[in-house]
Amino acid sequence: MKPELGVCYYPEHWPEANWAKDAARMIETGLTWVRIGEFAWSRLEPTPGNLQFDWLDRAIETLGSAGLKIVLGTPTATPPRWMMDKFPDMRAVDAEGHLRKFGSRRHYCFSHVGYIDECKRIAQILGQRYGRNPHIATWQIDNEYGCHDTTLSYSDAALNAFRRWLADRYGPIEALNTAWGNVFWSMEYNSFDQIELPNQTVTEPNPAHVLAFHRFSSDQVVAFNKAQVDALRPLTDAPLLHNYMGRVLDFDHFDVGDDLDIATWDSYPIGFLSDRLEADEAHRVAFLQQGDPDMQAFHHDLYRAVGRGRWWVMEQQPGPVNWAPYNPAPLPGMVRLWSLEAVAHGAEVVSYFRWRQAPFGQEQMHTGLLTPNGHGAPGLAEARQAADDLAALGEVQPARAPVAIVFDYASNWAWTTQPQGAGFDYFRLVFSAYRALRRAGLSVDFVPPAKVGEKHYYLILAPGVAVLGSLEQQLLQGCDLAIMGPRTGAITEDYQIPHAGRPGLDHLSSHVDLIETLPPQVVRTVDGGGNAEHWVEHLSGEAKTKLSFADGTPMLQGDAGLWYLAGFPDETLWDRVITMAAKETDLTLHMMPAGLRRREMQSHEVLINYNAHPISWNGLQIEGCDVLFRKHDSH
Amino acid sequence: MKPELGVCYYPEHWPEANWAKDAARMIETGLTWVRIGEFAWSRLEPTPGNLQFDWLDRAIETLGSAGLKIVLGTPTATPPRWMMDKFPDMRAVDAEGHLRKFGSRRHYCFSHVGYIDECKRIAQILGQRYGRNPHIATWQIDNEYGCHDTTLSYSDAALNAFRRWLADRYGPIEALNTAWGNVFWSMEYNSFDQIELPNQTVTEPNPAHVLAFHRFSSDQVVAFNKAQVDALRPLTDAPLLHNYMGRVLDFDHFDVGDDLDIATWDSYPIGFLSDRLEADEAHRVAFLQQGDPDMQAFHHDLYRAVGRGRWWVMEQQPGPVNWAPYNPAPLPGMVRLWSLEAVAHGAEVVSYFRWRQAPFGQEQMHTGLLTPNGHGAPGLAEARQAADDLAALGEVQPARAPVAIVFDYASNWAWTTQPQGAGFDYFRLVFSAYRALRRAGLSVDFVPPAKVGEKHYYLILAPGVAVLGSLEQQLLQGCDLAIMGPRTGAITEDYQIPHAGRPGLDHLSSHVDLIETLPPQVVRTVDGGGNAEHWVEHLSGEAKTKLSFADGTPMLQGDAGLWYLAGFPDETLWDRVITMAAKETDLTLHMMPAGLRRREMQSHEVLINYNAHPISWNGLQIEGCDVLFRKHDSH
Amino acid sequence: MKPELGVCYYPEHWPEANWAKDAARMIETGLTWVRIGEFAWSRLEPTPGNLQFDWLDRAIETLGSAGLKIVLGTPTATPPRWMMDKFPDMRAVDAEGHLRKFGSRRHYCFSHVGYIDECKRIAQILGQRYGRNPHIATWQIDNEYGCHDTTLSYSDAALNAFRRWLADRYGPIEALNTAWGNVFWSMEYNSFDQIELPNQTVTEPNPAHVLAFHRFSSDQVVAFNKAQVDALRPLTDAPLLHNYMGRVLDFDHFDVGDDLDIATWDSYPIGFLSDRLEADEAHRVAFLQQGDPDMQAFHHDLYRAVGRGRWWVMEQQPGPVNWAPYNPAPLPGMVRLWSLEAVAHGAEVVSYFRWRQAPFGQEQMHTGLLTPNGHGAPGLAEARQAADDLAALGEVQPARAPVAIVFDYASNWAWTTQPQGAGFDYFRLVFSAYRALRRAGLSVDFVPPAKVGEKHYYLILAPGVAVLGSLEQQLLQGCDLAIMGPRTGAITEDYQIPHAGRPGLDHLSSHVDLIETLPPQVVRTVDGGGNAEHWVEHLSGEAKTKLSFADGTPMLQGDAGLWYLAGFPDETLWDRVITMAAKETDLTLHMMPAGLRRREMQSHEVLINYNAHPISWNGLQIEGCDVLFRKHDSH
Ligand SMILES: [Zn+2]
Ligand SMILES: [Zn+2]
Ligand SMILES: [Zn+2]
Repeated sequence: MKPELGVCYYPEHWPEANWAKDAARMIETGLTWVRIGEFAWSRLEPTPGNLQFDWLDRAIETLGSAGLKIVLGTPTATPPRWMMDKFPDMRAVDAEGHLRKFGSRRHYCFSHVGYIDECKRIAQILGQRYGRNPHIATWQIDNEYGCHDTTLSYSDAALNAFRRWLADRYGPIEALNTAWGNVFWSMEYNSFDQIELPNQTVTEPNPAHVLAFHRFSSDQVVAFNKAQVDALRPLTDAPLLHNYMGRVLDFDHFDVGDDLDIATWDSYPIGFLSDRLEADEAHRVAFLQQGDPDMQAFHHDLYRAVGRGRWWVMEQQPGPVNWAPYNPAPLPGMVRLWSLEAVAHGAEVVSYFRWRQAPFGQEQMHTGLLTPNGHGAPGLAEARQAADDLAALGEVQPARAPVAIVFDYASNWAWTTQPQGAGFDYFRLVFSAYRALRRAGLSVDFVPPAKVGEKHYYLILAPGVAVLGSLEQQLLQGCDLAIMGPRTGAITEDYQIPHAGRPGLDHLSSHVDLIETLPPQVVRTVDGGGNAEHWVEHLSGEAKTKLSFADGTPMLQGDAGLWYLAGFPDETLWDRVITMAAKETDLTLHMMPAGLRRREMQSHEVLINYNAHPISWNGLQIEGCDVLFRKHDSH
Repeated sequence: MKPELGVCYYPEHWPEANWAKDAARMIETGLTWVRIGEFAWSRLEPTPGNLQFDWLDRAIETLGSAGLKIVLGTPTATPPRWMMDKFPDMRAVDAEGHLRKFGSRRHYCFSHVGYIDECKRIAQILGQRYGRNPHIATWQIDNEYGCHDTTLSYSDAALNAFRRWLADRYGPIEALNTAWGNVFWSMEYNSFDQIELPNQTVTEPNPAHVLAFHRFSSDQVVAFNKAQVDALRPLTDAPLLHNYMGRVLDFDHFDVGDDLDIATWDSYPIGFLSDRLEADEAHRVAFLQQGDPDMQAFHHDLYRAVGRGRWWVMEQQPGPVNWAPYNPAPLPGMVRLWSLEAVAHGAEVVSYFRWRQAPFGQEQMHTGLLTPNGHGAPGLAEARQAADDLAALGEVQPARAPVAIVFDYASNWAWTTQPQGAGFDYFRLVFSAYRALRRAGLSVDFVPPAKVGEKHYYLILAPGVAVLGSLEQQLLQGCDLAIMGPRTGAITEDYQIPHAGRPGLDHLSSHVDLIETLPPQVVRTVDGGGNAEHWVEHLSGEAKTKLSFADGTPMLQGDAGLWYLAGFPDETLWDRVITMAAKETDLTLHMMPAGLRRREMQSHEVLINYNAHPISWNGLQIEGCDVLFRKHDSH
Repeated sequence: MKPELGVCYYPEHWPEANWAKDAARMIETGLTWVRIGEFAWSRLEPTPGNLQFDWLDRAIETLGSAGLKIVLGTPTATPPRWMMDKFPDMRAVDAEGHLRKFGSRRHYCFSHVGYIDECKRIAQILGQRYGRNPHIATWQIDNEYGCHDTTLSYSDAALNAFRRWLADRYGPIEALNTAWGNVFWSMEYNSFDQIELPNQTVTEPNPAHVLAFHRFSSDQVVAFNKAQVDALRPLTDAPLLHNYMGRVLDFDHFDVGDDLDIATWDSYPIGFLSDRLEADEAHRVAFLQQGDPDMQAFHHDLYRAVGRGRWWVMEQQPGPVNWAPYNPAPLPGMVRLWSLEAVAHGAEVVSYFRWRQAPFGQEQMHTGLLTPNGHGAPGLAEARQAADDLAALGEVQPARAPVAIVFDYASNWAWTTQPQGAGFDYFRLVFSAYRALRRAGLSVDFVPPAKVGEKHYYLILAPGVAVLGSLEQQLLQGCDLAIMGPRTGAITEDYQIPHAGRPGLDHLSSHVDLIETLPPQVVRTVDGGGNAEHWVEHLSGEAKTKLSFADGTPMLQGDAGLWYLAGFPDETLWDRVITMAAKETDLTLHMMPAGLRRREMQSHEVLINYNAHPISWNGLQIEGCDVLFRKHDSH
């Protein structure tokens, strides 16, 4: 594989006279891919049925003939204003019952049948016109599903679809009443038509009700996406993809990804550290202009799994953005670092967002590779540098990761429904596990529950997986050692406590007797070092106790091949657990200094320094904000 | 009196085959009471008019014949789903104007006439069937009035009832305009039909309007409760009760209690410290797993007054709950401590919530005495221990408390309507007074304003009582010394400043000239020690100044029998005031170390140690989380 | 000019028997003005068309014949309840789509045509009856426009008016689409009827849409005010005025002021420090009972500009108020200090709010000069003292200010629409500049953008002015040195980035290449001292660099007559910049100690000590909370 670079471009924003010059300059910068079209519906169809594709024909021809491969987007994330007149009820409704109005983007409900038909229609028209066009190398469907909290909608369209979904799933209403335990608080229904969406209840609704609504809502995203996939597949051989976001967990990306060929995501390291990551102030200050050292890698690895090995960065932050609470500039070198780090994790393409900063609209303060008046912004030179680096690197292949983490979107829905403690969060827990593996210098794979056991790993971590299902058997097949817990196997599919108790394992005699959650200022000390925080379980059982709390109760129990953690480990405790697991499995660790990260490729060891200052490690010096590709034979 | 233990049980949640075993195990644990039925409407009447009582007949017979006395609940806190079809407008509306939907509990408006009729009907059916059943020893009406902010409703049903309530109270509309001072800002009405509920106004509504709405809303709760009382009284001789909550102040519990025979409350010490108590971080950490040392006692004493001497704990926290921001486990010993502390305050019954943890529904993470799969949870052994302790204790009688505090729900409504300073709160003020009396080792009674003077006390505290009425005369009859203020006698019944000024006393020449409120970082120092915080009044008048602020103005003025406080005392200042009051009245104080509390019974002095560590006091050693009943003759 | 004192009075609140006594006591206190009538509509017209003016005739006669000049208010801020029956749709709607109900004040939408007609009618009736009455010396129209967030309304009335306003402004819909850049995210409209108000969109709406809505909403306030001006002008020769609030920026006060003769404002120093000013805790504590030392002066100077030289304080805080989070009392001397400070800034009248504390209604805890039962409150003696001070002072004339600041309401709308960093705020930036000038002992004028160049100043500061227009040319005419930036000239009228780049100056080669915003814990150090915080721009260009960041990039660039600041200066940096500017322009600075402020009049230097303690300065001693008028010849 030879990784390439690309950029997002909006020909409809600029005079046609600029297009050829822009294309030439992209090529000159070392970019080979360009994404277009994903917000252009009002220009493709200014009034209902009035199709205006000439300009897009010319744009494709201009860009393509300059040597650029094109990602063509379907424009369904931004239905034009006239669509609202046609379907006044197509907009989503928020949890407070308020209609979410036209005037920005993503103003549609995933359950609106009329709008889904319109999306199929426009996708089909695009497919018919460009499905065999040689410049169209890939298709993007819609844009950033779920962004701006758009997965869940409390509209009538969603209500009706939810009732049908439940009837299909449960059969007679009595089955649903039993599955949900509706006898509790007299919540039993006489018919599916009595079920409402789980918002605005007096106190919290039944968690089974909420979890079902999350599963339903995720299925609606999958179906929405599949409608366009089905429209396009007969008309093109180019791969289909979608661009996901960071830490958007409201729908199951694996399910959407199964219908697509490539997963891509939109990586905004500085914005994400500012607006969606738990961190103390010192960490926020230290990495203010670099982003969190593990956040990008986490998503690279996650979306590599979603894409079944094929993945891109579709939007790479090129400078300050406009949407985070604070928007500082990346330190010099960081745009290049982010690009090369993605390559180290196996990206086929890294595409910058966007070519030229728009002088109008909501994102006018979002930088591009060019300034609004067409000068090179700082990101341009770094993109050029990254292109040179990639040219020098040549063919690369990803290496097998020795360890994996199970990632389960439904567990996030379960635990946001009933966190039990304000400090507990599924992503936070999994991210803490990921960080621990990275501090140990390990390359990491993510695996959805359904695929655990398909490949073999030294070690698989499965913290917080809500529903056990057949996971225990799969883990025993899929690794030398599996570490589960805390809160693994904690509920059934229908949000009940399992009859067999928690975690309910056949091959590990370890039982959760009691669960506690803790405020931030209180932790539980572990003998020998480290603490559990946020979440603590009281374990009993015959399994061997490998780590104990200060009061003598088990923190880590395990027998051959299966371990269970009784709390949310802090960094010190995670490091101890990983070290013990490495001993157990002959896994080699490479303990990393703060801010330095390591990723294995087949041919290279890649060292990525998120610090502003140089780091010496293992006889090597890595400059601040720099990436070092070290050939394996150069050891 | 021989105090007993009980438990809350949901036969409808478990296979009928379990019932007899559960009953036997309750008896074995030392429990003699069981509460059932309060959420079972959908099982008693699955569709309108389709009554299904056989299962309840059998449950009552099984539990009763095992030797358990039964509290039977009316199921009106959880109307079934079909009731919403019958009365779509029966649900409450929140202050933002949003309908509060079905799907949890308490989904009704207290003012909906159709629903009140349904409640009378179901109560009557239950009364006819079980009113003379020998196993039914007590009836609980509804469940936790006011919980989840359900007292105030902004529905049309409430609006119409409010207009009638106002017309009845004020007569011609001009009388209301004058009483409320509606000339201010041209708020005068031409008819009662023009009056709206006081939500969603541009800036704050007239406080007289808001206070009237609070009085009305409280009256609606009283009337709602009385409708079921009236339905049941002719059908049963068993006492009627309700289970109140902690720090729920939206309706007048004394008024509801006047129609009932026993007051009970639901005591969740750890949850309440976490979610409804002002405290600094150190206090929260020190008592994280015990609860605040005064919060339970406060409510025991308050509800003893509401029950006119007869009171229970209906729901006693048995382990971690599910609903607080953080849910740690009680320290070993605390479940027993809470139980015995209630007995020391005169409880007839302490009943645990609940027998067995439900594996489904909203409270599946709320522990019981048994785990979901039927093992003994930590609370079970402590309940067993408490039962043994009570057996050893034998007959006990409450002692007369030497001091009392006036508690007035309407004052809370007044001061939440116009706090004047963000740090001022009625409960907070009264609780600070209560803590001070408890630090001095005193047993405390609460008295509603209407009953002040019925019994005599050495000392009565009446801080923050909004409307004076005849309170001054009653206090002079009811105690040797009364301490009023701050903010006592501060408004009229219709929320005006009294013509005679504040506090408007006949026998104390003390006048409030100016009122200040202070941010948390600023206090006013008192000569000789201590500070006023949050709230400060400038006093003048001929009364003797007993304590002065550093600037020489009075902090405490008083003459024989009546004192007035000019600010919200901090702990040091409260201790000085109580010490001065004790000297004045020959009251004996027993100053207590932090976390140790004392309660007098006729035969015993009871010492309750909320600390995790042992405390030595007065030659005695009280272990951490332990209770010591010391016979008075053992001195 | 001989400054005078006045008071706000509500004859409708008190028995008619009191009026003459009150009037006599006002005169005795040294007050010569009285404002009445502005909330009295329900007494003037209790039911539609039923006019009741006799009481007002008598009140005017009583007050006037006692020697008081009367400000008569139109009562349009408080339409009576029957008006809601006539126009149910006249109330405003908030951004969440909720109707803002009757029951307080300002319950109208500025765009409701029917209500505007009613306002014209009542103004005309008042004008016909009292327009030539010799006691009516001034008219106040409405009361505190914009208070309680009432400028923006999301009602149907506003929507319809907004569509007409846009059609008038833009002509064909295509012009609007182009001007707003609606091609971005397919937001293009086919007709003006498709445009909605910019609330409740999925993510943020187009900033051009929001800014247009702000301009429109400001214009509606202007038109609403002008309707009453037009009704009154033919009927009276007395000046017309309005009373503005502090830090209310939602409408353009200059535009409203252009139709009036005098600007007045309502000054609540202690409330404003508590509820609307950025400050650290130490500052809040130090000035808790005095108010911020620059906040009053800022508004005095601003409203002097709005009134084109003629201005008053219409409501002066006389003691604790009722509406701030905390409401402490002014330190002794402060009521007098605030009064004299206003005079030093050129006030014609300082009028206290209110004469006697109301015992009812929303403001019953708002002090007056008298207590509710008619005793003198602390403010009364200070008003009396101020009257004596003014008598002693005699005739005074304002002095020319040597420096000015451009103040632009539209810039506030622009930057609240897209702050880009949570720490950036237009008022905060301008206020920091104002403070810096005051620390240097300078008297300051404010100038709206349209009038820059009409008078000449040594120095004009123009930070954060969003749209450049012809400002550069005006500044070159209007001063020796102009300092612009940060964020000056940053957008076009239609919220686009200017084609010429930022700031787009013709006579200064200084270009903004990149913009960063910073969290509070991060600053950018400037060589030689001081920091930029919140907002930082990367500058290039040929202009001379006068100050540099630690990394060598320019913080201040400038050539003769024009400087540009590349960041939001902290206090140290502002002081350096002002010192450099003074050297450049031969401006004399008088560096002031903390809390002491200085204002020049023609005859006097006035020193105002906001500290509680005395300050020695320049050989003078100024007592705590005192004002010193030093004759210029006494040097
Ligand atoms: Zn709403
Ligand atoms: Zn994006
Ligand atoms: Zn409960």
